[in-house]
Amino acid sequence: MTKNRKFTLVSRPDGEPKPSDFALVEEDLPELSDGAFLVRNHYISLDPAQRGWMSDAESYMPPIPIGAAVRASAVGRVHSSKNPDFPEGQWVVGLAAMEEFSVVEAGGFTSPVDASLVPSPTNFLSVLGAVGMTAYFGMIDDGQPKEGETLLVTGAAGAVGSLVGQIGKIKGCRVVGIAGGADKCARLTDEYGFDAAIDYRGKSQADLEKEIAAAAPDGVDIIWENVGGEILDAGITAINEHGRVVLCGLISEYNSPEPVGIRNLWYLISRQATIKGFLVRDYPPRFPEGIAQMGQWLAEGKIKHDEDIEKGIENSYDAFMKLFSGGNQGKMILDVSPES
Amino acid sequence: MTKNRKFTLVSRPDGEPKPSDFALVEEDLPELSDGAFLVRNHYISLDPAQRGWMSDAESYMPPIPIGAAVRASAVGRVHSSKNPDFPEGQWVVGLAAMEEFSVVEAGGFTSPVDASLVPSPTNFLSVLGAVGMTAYFGMIDDGQPKEGETLLVTGAAGAVGSLVGQIGKIKGCRVVGIAGGADKCARLTDEYGFDAAIDYRGKSQADLEKEIAAAAPDGVDIIWENVGGEILDAGITAINEHGRVVLCGLISEYNSPEPVGIRNLWYLISRQATIKGFLVRDYPPRFPEGIAQMGQWLAEGKIKHDEDIEKGIENSYDAFMKLFSGGNQGKMILDVSPES
Repeated sequence: MTKNRKFTLVSRPDGEPKPSDFALVEEDLPELSDGAFLVRNHYISLDPAQRGWMSDAESYMPPIPIGAAVRASAVGRVHSSKNPDFPEGQWVVGLAAMEEFSVVEAGGFTSPVDASLVPSPTNFLSVLGAVGMTAYFGMIDDGQPKEGETLLVTGAAGAVGSLVGQIGKIKGCRVVGIAGGADKCARLTDEYGFDAAIDYRGKSQADLEKEIAAAAPDGVDIIWENVGGEILDAGITAINEHGRVVLCGLISEYNSPEPVGIRNLWYLISRQATIKGFLVRDYPPRFPEGIAQMGQWLAEGKIKHDEDIEKGIENSYDAFMKLFSGGNQGKMILDVSPES
Repeated sequence: MTKNRKFTLVSRPDGEPKPSDFALVEEDLPELSDGAFLVRNHYISLDPAQRGWMSDAESYMPPIPIGAAVRASAVGRVHSSKNPDFPEGQWVVGLAAMEEFSVVEAGGFTSPVDASLVPSPTNFLSVLGAVGMTAYFGMIDDGQPKEGETLLVTGAAGAVGSLVGQIGKIKGCRVVGIAGGADKCARLTDEYGFDAAIDYRGKSQADLEKEIAAAAPDGVDIIWENVGGEILDAGITAINEHGRVVLCGLISEYNSPEPVGIRNLWYLISRQATIKGFLVRDYPPRFPEGIAQMGQWLAEGKIKHDEDIEKGIENSYDAFMKLFSGGNQGKMILDVSPES
């Protein structure tokens, strides 16, 4: 009989998650109540935000319960159903978990999608999913790029950052990216069309400030911040008057017991600049707009995107940790499909 | 013959300014070039921003030159003039310096004012001056207070903070103030009509977080920040979704060689909140609007304000340092008028 394999949280990580914080558990498939359906997950999204959900610190979602599968976005097909709106075989995307099968109760946060419209159903987790919608709405609503402005993107080779930079180029900005390592920096300029790339590795904050000033001679009008800490502090020294910092992530802080924070707040006053925290959570009602625009740019070849796909629920830990080592090249996805 | 006495900057302060960083200098009155006029300063505004101008760190204004009188806003009367627009005896307010006489060259940043409209010409340095305009435009444009929201004001007993809280009350907010010492806290609730006051003295950040949560049971929609450091970090833990932090000052950092910064940036993301740096510098074209509204509230008795006036240019250092010891009660002003 078919079993469900789940990557569960055993203990809340203290600093960097260890293999022993998790366990792979096998269990029988559940009975479905009326209105519920069972999804066979094919692709699971791996995101830095999951690290926050593992802790019991303040967040915009409740902590993942100890013993439960790690919460994750996933795309899959309905395996069995007691809900006429979600027939067997229907492709769906939703907030599920790192497991092969997920039960969706009536009213759960899962939507049907048309997999025939995209080259791969994984696209619903990347460029047309939360990652793409984060880049699109964060830039359009909060970044507000204008022709001739300069955009600085940190974590620029990541799934969100690489899209943000390309949206900046479409909007006529000079785009500077910060990433870790020569390979990623080469991808920024060669593949994604950034105007300049800065490798942060081995550099002090003072070094970074100099490199940012050189790459952005007219200063920086928009910072898209995925990293935090010294990288954000360095970027802020270059912010122009009325500049906007879209604060999307703080990946350098997530495994750190003591956040570094930022010390260059004074620049916000002297440049009358803004830091705005961004979550895509409020945007699902506007996703059709974002998907239409991102889809059009994709079709026109104006946006390139990469997916870094690992296979097998048994490789959950290693795949997740690539997000923090900087080892991933594009959107991290775990392929748990029956064929994988 | 009349001499000018000037409070000059001798060396850039390292941390807290020392008496030896300044010198009182006496010199002859200068000859006036065409279009210039000489102002006999009566009242000089003492502001935390002056501490920034004394250093050569990044700022929105050039550093005060070594050997020059310390830059300051002042109100005074034209003493002699080669400019027909500024006849002898005219009251003026402008960006001048801590000195008894200031030369204003043609085109300088000085405006005539009608001293007959106000109880005291000092009001042009407080409630109807940069202080009042900072509170008014920072709240209206960036704080955007709405009926039923909660406003947290730090440095609440200061010149700006006390006005900010009263504007919040006029706009229908619950207003909580943080200040140092029981006397100041009593003034917040008794004189300025705040709903609650928190004394930060002797309290840890965790203590402050608890007291803020108790005083603002529905969370905080607007933080008016004058202080920075742990007080800002404590306030941010209470910020509501889509909350606004108006960053007006960081007085706890100005004498510190190593800024503390903020570590609770994550709350900005999880609450989709904004920090916006505020300077009144861009607002002079809209001052008539702000002066009219603040003047009306004053006349209606809806706004109370205090001025803390010290006398004599020879007391410049002690008066200025009251800003940092928390010893002042209301807007710090130095009276250097001929009658003083």
